[in-house]
Amino acid sequence: MSDTHTTAPTRFVEIDGLKYAYRRWGKEGTTPVLFIPHYRAGMDHWDPIITDSFARDREVILFDGRGIAGSEGEPRETIEEMADDIAAFIRTIGVDKVDALGFSIGGMQVQELALRHSELVRKLLLLGTGPRGLILGSDPKVPKVAANPVPEAADFLYLFFGRSEEAKKAGLDFWERRHQRTVDVDPPSSMEVAQKQWPAVIAYRDSADKDKPFDYLGAIKQSTLIVNGIDDIMIDTASSLDMAKHIPDSQLILYPDAGHGAHFQYPERFVKHATQFLDEQ
Amino acid sequence: MSDTHTTAPTRFVEIDGLKYAYRRWGKEGTTPVLFIPHYRAGMDHWDPIITDSFARDREVILFDGRGIAGSEGEPRETIEEMADDIAAFIRTIGVDKVDALGFSIGGMQVQELALRHSELVRKLLLLGTGPRGLILGSDPKVPKVAANPVPEAADFLYLFFGRSEEAKKAGLDFWERRHQRTVDVDPPSSMEVAQKQWPAVIAYRDSADKDKPFDYLGAIKQSTLIVNGIDDIMIDTASSLDMAKHIPDSQLILYPDAGHGAHFQYPERFVKHATQFLDEQ
Repeated sequence: MSDTHTTAPTRFVEIDGLKYAYRRWGKEGTTPVLFIPHYRAGMDHWDPIITDSFARDREVILFDGRGIAGSEGEPRETIEEMADDIAAFIRTIGVDKVDALGFSIGGMQVQELALRHSELVRKLLLLGTGPRGLILGSDPKVPKVAANPVPEAADFLYLFFGRSEEAKKAGLDFWERRHQRTVDVDPPSSMEVAQKQWPAVIAYRDSADKDKPFDYLGAIKQSTLIVNGIDDIMIDTASSLDMAKHIPDSQLILYPDAGHGAHFQYPERFVKHATQFLDEQ
Repeated sequence: MSDTHTTAPTRFVEIDGLKYAYRRWGKEGTTPVLFIPHYRAGMDHWDPIITDSFARDREVILFDGRGIAGSEGEPRETIEEMADDIAAFIRTIGVDKVDALGFSIGGMQVQELALRHSELVRKLLLLGTGPRGLILGSDPKVPKVAANPVPEAADFLYLFFGRSEEAKKAGLDFWERRHQRTVDVDPPSSMEVAQKQWPAVIAYRDSADKDKPFDYLGAIKQSTLIVNGIDDIMIDTASSLDMAKHIPDSQLILYPDAGHGAHFQYPERFVKHATQFLDEQ
């Protein structure tokens, strides 16, 4: 019987004396898609529609970074270190190359992975994210809601989804799918993860070159798919456009009535777009 | 034997005493895709990869507006009148609803068709175009090249395609495909078409409400796919984003290393994106 999002067992691999949690399932012998999640999130924060749809044609790998959820160690304080940890993980589990999919802070990490460890990455998928010099949303309510010790459905509706009734419905449907896994679930991330990841995002934002903030993206040689909602209140949609303008071989897709979690709001549509992208020669 | 882009015969229909040229082929009993072309262009200015790919699953209709190429009459002087002519054409050939695909000035016409004759349009595809208040490219070379009496391949490479060698190659491949039809071709449009269409675009641009230029797009109820290159030098890519922000159910897709004719540069990719969009419930 093949594994799925809800049944794939949590495995552990030791790197530099620390145990990292991961799961992998799907079609063996393919280039795996490695999923790097949003702020504070671990392996249980993905949409089973997306992971299991991908798993029909390729392997899927979920992974908790250092100190996140089921992985040991002190949470990292910079995006670059997080990217180096991902590279060490890929090498340690014996994979040659991945298609790296990152959402929000995960998207920053996979961009740095492509820049710092280019040989490990075949293609990039950047969801609801931004480059160095990213633009955070200006609504002061956003950081407050994002800092909620135990995030609730209402928080995710506000932060990730569109404003229409249809968008809210899609958000609640996502919330239900995201909790379908009930055995062998990840422990929640510690508050320390939040305390370290947020400054890491700010430092990443402020690390941009003052004169030519996005020129460095020209070094990303991987084919890249950028997906976001037309109105991302967490990382401004303008940052998606900045990435599209400067990553040489990038496609940008924006969904209507949607924000940061556009791929969770339109999971079937996203799977088709991503599959077309991953299958392109 | 079924027709194709190169074999579908030119037909004529009379509206208000004038004969309009059109072609239709593909799968009968479907919602047809109606193609409205760019500045000065007629039925022979489309990419057979796109039209024939669409024709496998649906009908395709090409059409010369009033006074353009094979159609009789004085060329129209406003986008709104052009849209009304399209509506009259759809009604006269006995079609209930179309999926309206417009490129450049054609995209302006199909937006107005959706606003003025909403009942005739199922979905909209807007390629390399803009709304009222559109932003024209700022390079003074553009209007000069676009005004060339007999446009050549080099003109199209400059106006429609990206700047890399790969993009130029794609442009020349398009140019070759676009001339595959050798019998029953359209006569070229008269210079009068150019002389009337250009002021029509300028008037359309200047028709925007000064305070809320794009709010009127909220009245477009049709699902809409917007496609452009990341660097459109004819109608700024920012105008594609303006449409995406204000047409309620719109998806925006931008292709890399590409401009105004992004769909001609990546025809197979575009066909897949458009097919996914047209097939969505």
